[in-house]
Amino acid sequence: MLRNMKDYLQEYRQLIDKTLLEKLDTIQIPETLKQSMIYSVKAGGKRLRPILLLASYEVYGKKTAITLTTAAALEMIHTYSLIHDDLPAMDDDDYRRGMLTNHKAFDEATAILAGDALLTYSFELIANDSQLTADQKVEILQVLTEASGPKGMVAGQILDMQAENQPVTLEELEQIHAHKTGELLRFAVYAGAFLGGASRTELMHLKEFSYYLGLIFQVQDDILDIMGDEAKLGKPVGSDESNQKSTYPKLLGLEGAIEKKTWYVDKAKAALQKANAQESVLMDLTEYFSQRDH
Amino acid sequence: MLRNMKDYLQEYRQLIDKTLLEKLDTIQIPETLKQSMIYSVKAGGKRLRPILLLASYEVYGKKTAITLTTAAALEMIHTYSLIHDDLPAMDDDDYRRGMLTNHKAFDEATAILAGDALLTYSFELIANDSQLTADQKVEILQVLTEASGPKGMVAGQILDMQAENQPVTLEELEQIHAHKTGELLRFAVYAGAFLGGASRTELMHLKEFSYYLGLIFQVQDDILDIMGDEAKLGKPVGSDESNQKSTYPKLLGLEGAIEKKTWYVDKAKAALQKANAQESVLMDLTEYFSQRDH
Repeated sequence: MLRNMKDYLQEYRQLIDKTLLEKLDTIQIPETLKQSMIYSVKAGGKRLRPILLLASYEVYGKKTAITLTTAAALEMIHTYSLIHDDLPAMDDDDYRRGMLTNHKAFDEATAILAGDALLTYSFELIANDSQLTADQKVEILQVLTEASGPKGMVAGQILDMQAENQPVTLEELEQIHAHKTGELLRFAVYAGAFLGGASRTELMHLKEFSYYLGLIFQVQDDILDIMGDEAKLGKPVGSDESNQKSTYPKLLGLEGAIEKKTWYVDKAKAALQKANAQESVLMDLTEYFSQRDH
Repeated sequence: MLRNMKDYLQEYRQLIDKTLLEKLDTIQIPETLKQSMIYSVKAGGKRLRPILLLASYEVYGKKTAITLTTAAALEMIHTYSLIHDDLPAMDDDDYRRGMLTNHKAFDEATAILAGDALLTYSFELIANDSQLTADQKVEILQVLTEASGPKGMVAGQILDMQAENQPVTLEELEQIHAHKTGELLRFAVYAGAFLGGASRTELMHLKEFSYYLGLIFQVQDDILDIMGDEAKLGKPVGSDESNQKSTYPKLLGLEGAIEKKTWYVDKAKAALQKANAQESVLMDLTEYFSQRDH
């Protein structure tokens, strides 16, 4: 069953990159703002969120492109969150994936506005997507605003800040990740499957699936920070330790973290089965998320 | 015809304040984030944008409350823009209307996130507004995302930053204001009239009306900065001069600015006539915008 994931991911990544640039190149706005938005979108990495959206659509729907605008909008929201996270008042990062962060390449005011603009533009794109019905747009926007707003990703950001430099329990750690990175992953799976025509019951099981997928993503992130290859990661390992960040290995030990990951993988796969997606690419993506080396 | 505008404005202001707090009090999110969002929304002033929305609805529709959620969402977007504008990297203001700005009352990271949260939550509220049809939600969201995003308010912010400390023409000044403050005022009029059932032709004329209304608002702002009463304004006069800001009086002289305002008022009223709203409260609001003393 295991597909050639490398080709699969690359094909979708290219499709998403092309869509993102089309949506941004044609927009009539002040040049500096446009350049700043494009800079960070181009600096983007694996495009995991939009790929997950397209993959979830594929499980239930036909292999056409009606999800491309939503996928691009999702990646723009992810990009906005990185731009604001990197600001001096937040994580104060000068580099991301070897490139200057937005406020270093431009300036802080422009970075704040580029983030604001990407967030708002992503909703504009969905509201104007001629491939979706009004009902589809409304449901997508309901789920996406909740996932990215104060109940979702922004809540995760605040919780993460509050947890800095103080001990957290495993449950609190899961809560932070479920909000900070999990919400957009859950939206990806939900939106793809919903537009693909999954039933309400299937959507419910997929919600459980994507909850565990988000945690798999995060525990692997923490494991890579200890065991990873700096060259492949494009960032130094061991930074969690020096930043006094709460991580799975710190709470459970490295062995315990790996065990926890296996448990999450089992839960994710069981949920996929219930969602009638046991033979799908989502199974392969779960393995990929769990074993990725960067 | 001239209504008792003071009572009218106060009645609507109270209705909007009540709606805003209802929407924010009930939201289940981390406490700091919630307090920070509520702090700035409560610190709000005249509620001109949502009042304009309710008034425009009243002209064409029945006097019910189906616009209240949209009006509250609009005020939240206005509030988010003020929070981000006040940040150290932008205007670096410690006070607004005699109260500490958000990043001073909380901290910079929280202020950035409170702004992000208010922006996203406003779209969430509209997408979930049970009083609107899916088609109405989509049109409202199309117009609002465009008005507040990179083509609208965010563009105005960038243009304003770029114009700092350098001479601009009257045309450029109009462009900055049309985007920075005008777009949300235009949305207010459009959304109210659209939900009230105005025809496409009426909406077209109202677009022209609100363009001039925005400029009236701005030229009066500039005039008040010279002639205003500090006690009524709640801020020192003459700050535009010391901040080297481009203003109407600087470009046209005080007499010229007042003349320009009269010309804008004539244009706004002519557009209202064409929109079949010559007998409406929008006429009174135009006078109010033009003659306000704070």
